[in-house]
Amino acid sequence: MGVVLSFEEYPTERASISPLVEITASGMQRVNRLVVERTRSDVTLIPEVARYLIDSGGKRMRPMVTIASAQACGYHGDAEVKLAAAVEFMHTATLFHDDVVDESNTRRGKRAARLVWGNQESVLVGDFLLGQAFKMMVEVESLEALAVLSAAAAAIAEGEVMQLTTAKNTETTEDEYLDVIRAKTAVLFSAAAEVGAVVAGSDRSVRAAFRSYGANLGIAFQLIDDALDYGGETPTLGKDVGDDFREGKVTLPVVLAYRRGSDDDRAFWRRTLVEGTIGEDDLAHAVSLLERTRALKDTVERARHYAAMAHDALAPLPDERAKAALLQALAFCIARAH
Amino acid sequence: MGVVLSFEEYPTERASISPLVEITASGMQRVNRLVVERTRSDVTLIPEVARYLIDSGGKRMRPMVTIASAQACGYHGDAEVKLAAAVEFMHTATLFHDDVVDESNTRRGKRAARLVWGNQESVLVGDFLLGQAFKMMVEVESLEALAVLSAAAAAIAEGEVMQLTTAKNTETTEDEYLDVIRAKTAVLFSAAAEVGAVVAGSDRSVRAAFRSYGANLGIAFQLIDDALDYGGETPTLGKDVGDDFREGKVTLPVVLAYRRGSDDDRAFWRRTLVEGTIGEDDLAHAVSLLERTRALKDTVERARHYAAMAHDALAPLPDERAKAALLQALAFCIARAH
Repeated sequence: MGVVLSFEEYPTERASISPLVEITASGMQRVNRLVVERTRSDVTLIPEVARYLIDSGGKRMRPMVTIASAQACGYHGDAEVKLAAAVEFMHTATLFHDDVVDESNTRRGKRAARLVWGNQESVLVGDFLLGQAFKMMVEVESLEALAVLSAAAAAIAEGEVMQLTTAKNTETTEDEYLDVIRAKTAVLFSAAAEVGAVVAGSDRSVRAAFRSYGANLGIAFQLIDDALDYGGETPTLGKDVGDDFREGKVTLPVVLAYRRGSDDDRAFWRRTLVEGTIGEDDLAHAVSLLERTRALKDTVERARHYAAMAHDALAPLPDERAKAALLQALAFCIARAH
Repeated sequence: MGVVLSFEEYPTERASISPLVEITASGMQRVNRLVVERTRSDVTLIPEVARYLIDSGGKRMRPMVTIASAQACGYHGDAEVKLAAAVEFMHTATLFHDDVVDESNTRRGKRAARLVWGNQESVLVGDFLLGQAFKMMVEVESLEALAVLSAAAAAIAEGEVMQLTTAKNTETTEDEYLDVIRAKTAVLFSAAAEVGAVVAGSDRSVRAAFRSYGANLGIAFQLIDDALDYGGETPTLGKDVGDDFREGKVTLPVVLAYRRGSDDDRAFWRRTLVEGTIGEDDLAHAVSLLERTRALKDTVERARHYAAMAHDALAPLPDERAKAALLQALAFCIARAH
């Protein structure tokens, strides 16, 4: 007789985004309609630029989390759709501004909008999306949801400025780096998860559960992204590898490899990331250093730690179907790095 | 026996900003404290950059209008102070982003922040101020005030993008130019005036009066700024003259001079503003064309028209002291151009 795992046990092997996509499908359809509607403008440049990035196939994890969280709390209305779209607009606005600030050339495998239209257009269309996000949130008429999202907006902007000062510093500690990604990524995931519970009128403890799930999912998500940018746990050099390296970003894999490496290694990281002198074989050498110091494996290990915290945060949730979907999405997020 | 003008007659000669400064003095002190408080951050770059622009001696017309409007409606509390500070932060944020977008070198006679710190810092500190503005507004817990200000934020951003497409077009019509400055300047003045009445709980007609006062004051204010950038109604070339010209901005004086000028004139405007080929004597020549076509005088005339509309908008206001202060500030705004 085989072991039968009941649905409630969420084995960590069950890593899949599909249940989350499924349970949020009808809500996300309405989010997507709203996104199209709210990027309309007589100023034709706006829908053109905004849709370039919005249609470019982001995972839409954040709005899905909002929809799922509202649903898990038993809410069925319109508010969560507007809040989810607002969250996605806030996220997209920061991508536009980030690309300008980082002087990035690609975004999601496409040419960055700032190269197609220009930096000016990217700054202003980002501002437009922020304005529209703000307007949608206000339409929901929930002061609690507004408080959560406005605090997030302020924290995100503060985190972006903080990142300017740490970006080129190879001496950054793991704690300092975590502060940056808490502000840059975790805060919006956390707000996205919490506002779903807020519009559902859930009590303090449920709100806190979602806030914590979102924050830890956000950190795990970012750390896995950092590892993936060097090819993941067992790297293979492909076309999606090396963007962070070429832009001189000091991410957790580098923080670990720098501390664990030799003086020669440290000189290598300073030359490539800080001075920006990068030769043809340097990316391959960077990856070999990251493997030798176990930096990629341990970045994924760290991500697992935050995923475990996110997992435990959701424990008290009564809606088993939504909970399972959110936990499997969490596992999926980690599994990307294999 | 001389003619005695009662205070209620607001003769247009009585052009002074002092009464407005006086009646809003205690409120503005609290606004200024809040501005300092809300630009504090552990990320030291933030207060440094933000204060550079905030302390550089803007007139703070917008927050004064909010304070005066709340006061004129009989409100004495805290909400108007937070909203006024939020309005000033929104304004300052757009200045940061504008400087980056316009590649400006100076702002209020000082080097633009983007040259002192960098474009990246200016974009992100602008975002930080927007986030803080949003947070302060939410703290006031007035959904009506939030609706007014969020609609303004969205319209401002849309106007900025619109301006990108008209900026270098000498064929811009007066109407098209007015659409730009309505979105870019009038909308925030209008919101600044209206939210004062909103927190005071004033009825629809009083709110509409302030909304209209603000919008028309904003247009008049911008048109006078446009004229002043060429030295005002009777120009003298000084150090504060010619920024718009050097940046290739098509403002109302140029719109009028272009339409009223000869083919040679139009070739001159295209060469200098669109192609950006500017020789040593070109600014003087531009001013002479603006004078010959009466473009500066008529820009001020147009501003007077909007000032008259703003004046009439406030007619039903019962608070004579605040009304007088707001009308004298309006007259002052026009008188700057002499």
